[in-house]
Amino acid sequence: MPKRVGLREVAELANVSLAAVSRAYTPGTSISEATRERVMQAARKLGYRPNLLARSLIKGKSGIIGVVMGNPRHPLFAVALEALSRRLSQAGKHILIFTAENPAHMADVHVEDLLQYRVDALLLMAANLSSKLAEHCREGGIPVILFNRLAQKVPGMVTVTGAGRDIGQKIATHLLQQGYRRLAYMDEPLSSRELESGFIGYATSKGLPPPERVLVHSQREGAVVAARTLLSQRRRPDAIFCVNDHMAMATIEVARDEFGLKIGRALGVVGFDDSEQASWPTWDLTTYSHPIDPMIERIIDLLLQDPKERHPSRIIVEGVLKCRGSTKRT
Amino acid sequence: MPKRVGLREVAELANVSLAAVSRAYTPGTSISEATRERVMQAARKLGYRPNLLARSLIKGKSGIIGVVMGNPRHPLFAVALEALSRRLSQAGKHILIFTAENPAHMADVHVEDLLQYRVDALLLMAANLSSKLAEHCREGGIPVILFNRLAQKVPGMVTVTGAGRDIGQKIATHLLQQGYRRLAYMDEPLSSRELESGFIGYATSKGLPPPERVLVHSQREGAVVAARTLLSQRRRPDAIFCVNDHMAMATIEVARDEFGLKIGRALGVVGFDDSEQASWPTWDLTTYSHPIDPMIERIIDLLLQDPKERHPSRIIVEGVLKCRGSTKRT
Repeated sequence: MPKRVGLREVAELANVSLAAVSRAYTPGTSISEATRERVMQAARKLGYRPNLLARSLIKGKSGIIGVVMGNPRHPLFAVALEALSRRLSQAGKHILIFTAENPAHMADVHVEDLLQYRVDALLLMAANLSSKLAEHCREGGIPVILFNRLAQKVPGMVTVTGAGRDIGQKIATHLLQQGYRRLAYMDEPLSSRELESGFIGYATSKGLPPPERVLVHSQREGAVVAARTLLSQRRRPDAIFCVNDHMAMATIEVARDEFGLKIGRALGVVGFDDSEQASWPTWDLTTYSHPIDPMIERIIDLLLQDPKERHPSRIIVEGVLKCRGSTKRT
Repeated sequence: MPKRVGLREVAELANVSLAAVSRAYTPGTSISEATRERVMQAARKLGYRPNLLARSLIKGKSGIIGVVMGNPRHPLFAVALEALSRRLSQAGKHILIFTAENPAHMADVHVEDLLQYRVDALLLMAANLSSKLAEHCREGGIPVILFNRLAQKVPGMVTVTGAGRDIGQKIATHLLQQGYRRLAYMDEPLSSRELESGFIGYATSKGLPPPERVLVHSQREGAVVAARTLLSQRRRPDAIFCVNDHMAMATIEVARDEFGLKIGRALGVVGFDDSEQASWPTWDLTTYSHPIDPMIERIIDLLLQDPKERHPSRIIVEGVLKCRGSTKRT
């Protein structure tokens, strides 16, 4: 282990002022690249490392953003995590990960941990916030930002979400325009009521029979069973909107392989998320695409903002419906 | 903001000893659930929160494990991250994420950050270690663990990987047993030479012509072009081993949709990773399945181990080849 060296030794070796050494280690301060490199070289030679943890105690800022992930396997959040981590580290901040084992019931020990690390802000991705955690954060002055594809308004908090009701309406409109008339809706638990009411509300307002709604628990097996049930009916739906692409692909498989239906012509299928495979010829799936990049940008702005400037609000970012072969009738 | 309260006030209100309060906040120490709950209740009532950052300065341990992710979008690592995060938080540790923008060239600023946070250990997932970072970590006494599906031996480091050469050989053996004779190998840059030498070595040792090898840069488009090229040849391969499932699925699409080939009978396709969709009837893909759970267990053991007990070593965990319809000739 190298012996203890301080700022002074680094400044001497680099032949710069003490202030320059300090600036070299503070992200976002003005310093020339050449000076910064000189400081870093001297620091490396001496084995000097400023202690960010000690500094965070003095400044009251840890540079750590706590991220609670409800479902780390969700493809959307893998993409979001990558973008967040890259952008935040450019700003000298880092992500400390907390997993909500059950999005509905965050273990208290995690909450305690989170506060103990003195995170500068807390970002919830696809995780519900317990009222207890919300209260703890308010007491501790830790800003909380909620990021979800879809979410209801949460009082006293900043939320960044998609436009649930509008999206539901947009999808129903597209299906009607394509000539589908007997719509069905494959939902999952904890999904947004706004999406549902937009979709079902629009269809019924246009005089269609109320879309049948099936609730599916596990992504794959549940969707397969639900698709079989829907398609076995005497008056089966001619279009199914599934609230994620995985469920939509499972529905396509069942319709094609088990019922011999031509996707698009005999059965319209719409997904949600525009996952990587949606555009592959095998699926050619019409699906709603979330504007991940602008969402992440907004979240980063919020995370880096002065907490005093941050007010409870709901930020809605609009995406697009990618219309593909799975809803083409001809 | 609540006023400053200390251990003493919590101990008084909970009517327990100071040592009991300290134990209640130290993961892994012996304390009854009832006492722990009493301490937590008193702490909540008083708004007390021990400062982990301060404690980490005293103990020299931050409770933070740095994780450098080469490719956060890789499905394998989303699964691994979830398991790691859950298990580590049970042990009172947390993951601080660092992204390697380019797995081959880790930005120096990230390295500096990482050391400044005094991470207890560093886990590299699908990321290469620059010799500079390796040196910094050695100097700082920070243990480094390398986790990859496949990797060569790295001197002076603990690695947890799959058995590259054996896997390649296992896959070639399976294809030969199924009666395939003209093998091809679709590879990606930076993948393991061991896998290749196992696959190609075994095939040639059995008197087959050396498998054609194509190198593909981008997962989807590259694989589509490569599959077209391979299948357009006069003597085209009768089996293709792709080093990830995405490439294998793209190959199946091209073979089926563009060349009208019956998968399995006319063309065998093998993937790698056993991703969620591999077992779906649409793909029915033979693929190599990594033993993620035992790998994660080994990594967690290593991360929680006393650094003095940890010696450079290579831990190889064996998976299984899932034989499905894509390599069935009949």
